[in-house]
Amino acid sequence: MQRLNYTDFAMTTPIVAEILSVGTEILLGEIVDTNAAWLAARLNERGIRIFRKQTVGDNLLRLCNALDLALNRADIVIVTGGLGPADDDMTREAISQVFDEKPTVDPGLLENLQQMFKTRNRPMPAANNKQAWLIESAEGLDNPFGTACGWAVRKNGKLLFALPGPPSEMKKMWADQVEPRLPSTGQCFYHTTIHTCLIGEPHLAEIISDYTVMKSPGVGTYARANGVDVRVGAVAASENEAKKIVMPAAAEIEKRLHEFVYGRDGETLVSAIMKMLNLRNENFSCMESLTGGAIAAEVTACPGISSCFAGSITAYSAEAKIAFGISPQTIERYGVVSQQVAEEMAKNVKKIFKTSWGIATTGAAGPDSHDGKQPGTAWVAVAGPEKLETMLVDWPGDRAMIINRVGRSALQMLWSALRREK
Amino acid sequence: MQRLNYTDFAMTTPIVAEILSVGTEILLGEIVDTNAAWLAARLNERGIRIFRKQTVGDNLLRLCNALDLALNRADIVIVTGGLGPADDDMTREAISQVFDEKPTVDPGLLENLQQMFKTRNRPMPAANNKQAWLIESAEGLDNPFGTACGWAVRKNGKLLFALPGPPSEMKKMWADQVEPRLPSTGQCFYHTTIHTCLIGEPHLAEIISDYTVMKSPGVGTYARANGVDVRVGAVAASENEAKKIVMPAAAEIEKRLHEFVYGRDGETLVSAIMKMLNLRNENFSCMESLTGGAIAAEVTACPGISSCFAGSITAYSAEAKIAFGISPQTIERYGVVSQQVAEEMAKNVKKIFKTSWGIATTGAAGPDSHDGKQPGTAWVAVAGPEKLETMLVDWPGDRAMIINRVGRSALQMLWSALRREK
Repeated sequence: MQRLNYTDFAMTTPIVAEILSVGTEILLGEIVDTNAAWLAARLNERGIRIFRKQTVGDNLLRLCNALDLALNRADIVIVTGGLGPADDDMTREAISQVFDEKPTVDPGLLENLQQMFKTRNRPMPAANNKQAWLIESAEGLDNPFGTACGWAVRKNGKLLFALPGPPSEMKKMWADQVEPRLPSTGQCFYHTTIHTCLIGEPHLAEIISDYTVMKSPGVGTYARANGVDVRVGAVAASENEAKKIVMPAAAEIEKRLHEFVYGRDGETLVSAIMKMLNLRNENFSCMESLTGGAIAAEVTACPGISSCFAGSITAYSAEAKIAFGISPQTIERYGVVSQQVAEEMAKNVKKIFKTSWGIATTGAAGPDSHDGKQPGTAWVAVAGPEKLETMLVDWPGDRAMIINRVGRSALQMLWSALRREK
Repeated sequence: MQRLNYTDFAMTTPIVAEILSVGTEILLGEIVDTNAAWLAARLNERGIRIFRKQTVGDNLLRLCNALDLALNRADIVIVTGGLGPADDDMTREAISQVFDEKPTVDPGLLENLQQMFKTRNRPMPAANNKQAWLIESAEGLDNPFGTACGWAVRKNGKLLFALPGPPSEMKKMWADQVEPRLPSTGQCFYHTTIHTCLIGEPHLAEIISDYTVMKSPGVGTYARANGVDVRVGAVAASENEAKKIVMPAAAEIEKRLHEFVYGRDGETLVSAIMKMLNLRNENFSCMESLTGGAIAAEVTACPGISSCFAGSITAYSAEAKIAFGISPQTIERYGVVSQQVAEEMAKNVKKIFKTSWGIATTGAAGPDSHDGKQPGTAWVAVAGPEKLETMLVDWPGDRAMIINRVGRSALQMLWSALRREK
């Protein structure tokens, strides 16, 4: 993977941040720490670098130790979690200890907190008192969605933010309270992402090898489930200047990769298919066996898709296939996992829904072999206004992987056919 | 959340593990590290404690530094990521450096790798050679789903595992290669999870409040997307002893929650439905509008479901609904998002697939309102051998949340109907 590190092309000495997630529930594996990725993306967008991330449980000693390490290695430390009212919520205690200051109840924060309980008509438990604590170097950060007030600590040239763990509270406070307090890196970042499919990363990287070695714009390639993404980004003194660096390069890259590019930024393979079909005033439908509804589910996850998607049939059993027009002779002669059955499925669903295009999948998803075929063996078919195409997909994996891969292949085939007939 | 900390009731000096996630893409916030939570849960289940987790980017110095810290603090270190063939995949280099050993290409691993490319008819790039590296203290761990071979290193009383970052590869190798190599904690942990639906967590917690305060067995409640889970666990010198503590408590809890319990451990709502249908020699099918294939996709993700699932129709447009037998008069009179249309859809799909049960969904998924209905408004119907039931689901959310919620409601309704007719 040729990776685009936003800050590789930073213009000044970088500001370094470290993220510290706090909570025994994370170390028990009961929750996935999504805050860390979200915070990392926000910091990188601002040109602030992150070299390390730590997670510790609700343990004062290890929490202090982790804070010490982070404050030694980074300019800015972002702590999430451990701001609840419980005895084992110890982020406030640890920060006070590490900065060697004694926390006291802040009258202003206490009043806010009491007001919060009052408007909800609930008595405030004594335990919540500690949520109104502050140390001298800390400023309280308002939390409109909860009782856990945040802290912004400035001391010894370091900046530390303590935010609550629940993502909705954390994100709201980030925007309202943390962003305005972050130092400016004096840089504006701009980037755009080009989405491709049906081309492997090594081949793609070769085509744009003169770009991936550039410092500015920085160009990175990313293998995703749906294909390979190319991100083009630059840092400049203003967004316009950054755009001026990014845009011509992105246009040239898109031109070189033209036959593989399905979209930019928020576009998906399904939205790209929708766009082409709407332009041609055509529509599609599908008959799924192996993918069992996964294609329809992915397609209908796209807002506005009803403009070109009529519907889908999951014909799981041989009987269901026959009920939807697949000939019993074809099934008997070639088996349900066959090119012939896939072809008939695509042709029939096109007829049933009266659509311009019909796509179909049949195969063995596993864990057991099906119709004498190993899991991972599948046929995909696309029937268009003129042509009928089929493809063998044959790659091992677990049930979920196989279903995903075959569904993706079918959508890519449709996209590719629409592209060629343009 | 009432948290069940497996190791709160550990009996001997704990074995401590530390997880180290490697990858600049994690620190850039481009991917959420789900591996760490999954690994943490597996380790905790075995009575192995985790006090800390680290993340570093693809940087040799910081990677070595993090490995050093982890090996000093823990008995077992699990590293994920950085095993690709690229120059910036440096986990092998870092481990070699920290253990002060020189990596060489292992002939056996190289042969496996070459074979892998050969069966896929693709030439093996020279870069992949390093995926066959080993050091003397390391044992290669086979990766059936990819080219990144893992390492198990035993040295200086420490045990280190290096696994690839892609979750499907990592999980498969964990089960096949890591688990058999993990030390016994001298404790046997046994736990069972009771899955419930159609009851809220506060109400459920009240019913079993005498259990959630117990030390052994430990009882925790967890709100999940599909309902509330109750986990009952205990640690003892043998699995049998632990079972003897867990089983009677689990049986009593299941008895108290009986009407809400759909399964235990690996069972899902779909597998519970399958079990009941197979016992009765019945089957089902569905017609989806709002959920657009999401129900079929969830159903067919369950191995063996072809025994009782005939198939599904995604009738997305009004025309498609009419093509599958919904009366145009009903649509005109009541609208497509109506109890009457949901009823006709359930009845018709039952007829089309000749199944004992038919389920249907119709509604507005958003972001725009549909048929004059706000996003989140939906009708769900279940047509059985005797009765026809409908339910209004009406709750705001984004498109994905609404689709999930309505799909779940339909499956819960079918489960509940099968339960009552038992």
